[in-house]
Amino acid sequence: MNPELIDTLTLKNDTKIVFLILDGVGGLPLPGSDKTELETANTPNLDRLAGSSICGLLDPIGYGITPGSGPAHFALFGYDPVKNNVGRGILSAAGIDFPMTERDLFMRVNFATVDKSGVVIDRRAGRIDNETNRKLCRKLQEGVRLNSCDVFFETVKEHRGLIVLRGDNMRDEIEETDPQKVGMPPIPPKALTPKAEETAILITELTEKAREILSDEGKANAMLLRGYAKYRSFPSLGKRFNLNPLAIANYPMYKGIARLLGMTVNQQTNTIKEEFAALRENYEKYDFFFLHIKPTDSRGEDGDFDAKVKVIEEVDSLLPVITELNPDVLVVTGDHSTPALLASHSWHPVPVLLSSDTCRPDSVEQFSETECTRGGLGRLPMVYLMGIALAHAKRLTKFGA
Amino acid sequence: MNPELIDTLTLKNDTKIVFLILDGVGGLPLPGSDKTELETANTPNLDRLAGSSICGLLDPIGYGITPGSGPAHFALFGYDPVKNNVGRGILSAAGIDFPMTERDLFMRVNFATVDKSGVVIDRRAGRIDNETNRKLCRKLQEGVRLNSCDVFFETVKEHRGLIVLRGDNMRDEIEETDPQKVGMPPIPPKALTPKAEETAILITELTEKAREILSDEGKANAMLLRGYAKYRSFPSLGKRFNLNPLAIANYPMYKGIARLLGMTVNQQTNTIKEEFAALRENYEKYDFFFLHIKPTDSRGEDGDFDAKVKVIEEVDSLLPVITELNPDVLVVTGDHSTPALLASHSWHPVPVLLSSDTCRPDSVEQFSETECTRGGLGRLPMVYLMGIALAHAKRLTKFGA
Repeated sequence: MNPELIDTLTLKNDTKIVFLILDGVGGLPLPGSDKTELETANTPNLDRLAGSSICGLLDPIGYGITPGSGPAHFALFGYDPVKNNVGRGILSAAGIDFPMTERDLFMRVNFATVDKSGVVIDRRAGRIDNETNRKLCRKLQEGVRLNSCDVFFETVKEHRGLIVLRGDNMRDEIEETDPQKVGMPPIPPKALTPKAEETAILITELTEKAREILSDEGKANAMLLRGYAKYRSFPSLGKRFNLNPLAIANYPMYKGIARLLGMTVNQQTNTIKEEFAALRENYEKYDFFFLHIKPTDSRGEDGDFDAKVKVIEEVDSLLPVITELNPDVLVVTGDHSTPALLASHSWHPVPVLLSSDTCRPDSVEQFSETECTRGGLGRLPMVYLMGIALAHAKRLTKFGA
Repeated sequence: MNPELIDTLTLKNDTKIVFLILDGVGGLPLPGSDKTELETANTPNLDRLAGSSICGLLDPIGYGITPGSGPAHFALFGYDPVKNNVGRGILSAAGIDFPMTERDLFMRVNFATVDKSGVVIDRRAGRIDNETNRKLCRKLQEGVRLNSCDVFFETVKEHRGLIVLRGDNMRDEIEETDPQKVGMPPIPPKALTPKAEETAILITELTEKAREILSDEGKANAMLLRGYAKYRSFPSLGKRFNLNPLAIANYPMYKGIARLLGMTVNQQTNTIKEEFAALRENYEKYDFFFLHIKPTDSRGEDGDFDAKVKVIEEVDSLLPVITELNPDVLVVTGDHSTPALLASHSWHPVPVLLSSDTCRPDSVEQFSETECTRGGLGRLPMVYLMGIALAHAKRLTKFGA
């Protein structure tokens, strides 16, 4: 089934849908154990909810495919993650709320340190702080002029920034200059297709001028470019599904995805508790809520099984903030798995529970990977989750007569 | 998900993957019983492995579709079995290691017996032996000359041979001449599309000349043609997935499939035990192993339930030869089901187990059709198996940023 079939069936009503997304929640047991992080965590609230919900397992992209955060979130919101795959530059731009135009080319930049021979000796320039980053961006903004396009230098965080080229016929098929390891010089930004030649020349000019300007810096004396992405627009979630959505996230990347899909992004929060509070405060004003929990993924990436367990337990303890609001549909899942065992994203499917008045019961009594294998939803591509949520919210009409 | 998405994500590393394929392993209970062949067999090694593996059920082509061996194996190796469906002639040619060229048209031939009126009375010419077959092929090779193309007569086994026409504009849309039952004359090789007219004329000429040459034979006095297939090439498994694959099979057909996909084919083995020994001997030299077990299918085709059970038990007893090598990924499955009850291939899904260090546990404790219905892999199209195996071997990089 084409995931866009539901677009033709949406209805408007007063129901409310909450997507509680524990980033990277899916896990694996450590050697010698048979329990994942989620199965180890003490989660009385999630388990009670699982007992009255319908559960299953979601494949973000497809069997065996480990997703990046971008495509995994596209799938969560019902956007085909392969057709809508974008370079990370545009997610960065959306994340810092950069005012994008159709003529823009976005690049992620790392400030880095090179030695006298031009070899990269630190890909993160000693993790400079935000203030230093802002100073560097101002210096580059004042000093770099390009022949045929505008250029913008924007701070993201620590050593990370965003560069935007605004001009005609920009292309993103360009070699990334980040060698991905130290001991090598930056890679020249060659065109990967003939049509990208002009842009490659501009980026070469940009890197040369920037090198000159940064040459007197101690640490941040070089730039490494990656994640090139030409501007593209997406049909908004609100329009596709007749929703008025609010995104609550502590990290720029996820706000960026939400903005690209036309969601309203809540003001800055910093803790999980603040995110739950923001949901309660804004509950009357919106009808779809994307509440993003980052540390499950971060602790998984750290390889810290116990810390990931603790994050899950914290989320469980806050769950009543949502259940007391009694949303018509509450979905709890992740965007992908990040087992502490692997200290990285993985291809394993993600447990999901969907709670509503119209759930057919299944035999799952605990929110866990193993129990979810026998859930009533079965195992399905993540991109279909949104349609199921809309259906339980009575927001989809009949197909055909 | 397009099964070729994984091609863009493959990585090279030192991990090893073993595909142990029990041809036609899936079965059905006999009337009055509730156990399939696999469930009846005493398989302590497979059951122990299933306990620590992730299990599921594979559909070779799709729901309700009974596959031939060719497409089923294409699916096993991650090739879309419908897009890559080929006539059996090319599999026969690959099976006997015939040096193919792009101008070739392949046909399977059965030597057969016709009576004086030209009616087929034995479709297998009394199952003549290989030596007789070779004599007939030599006689035909010397006697048959065609106007505008070269022709090659090759022995396969017993009454089965291969004919190759080499010339320009060969087409394979031709009526098969094998009437598939006795009591009828061979069918004329009519063109099924206008473009195949020229080839049809050549094949008519071929059959007439052959009939003349064979007319003095007692048993093998006719030829029945089927499985026409124009040459086509396939992207090699090794290149697609960055693998160095070895195929171990006792039967020509499966070597043929392996050759078409660019695998190295091991020297001739004749017993299951020899096949397992060959795996052990070659373990250091390759990183992907296709070990094909034929008699599970043959005994199923014979309708011999007990004999099929015995073959499964023999494979189980040899399983430690593989598990002692401790491959990073071990997959045990079949290409399709061949229930003795039906004495033929069937559409039933095939049980699969995948063993690796990164398996999320499921509750399956026995390798059987029934237990696999509640495995963590769920039920999935067979074409996705290869991607899952590559993922567990850490041979796929992340999709998207």
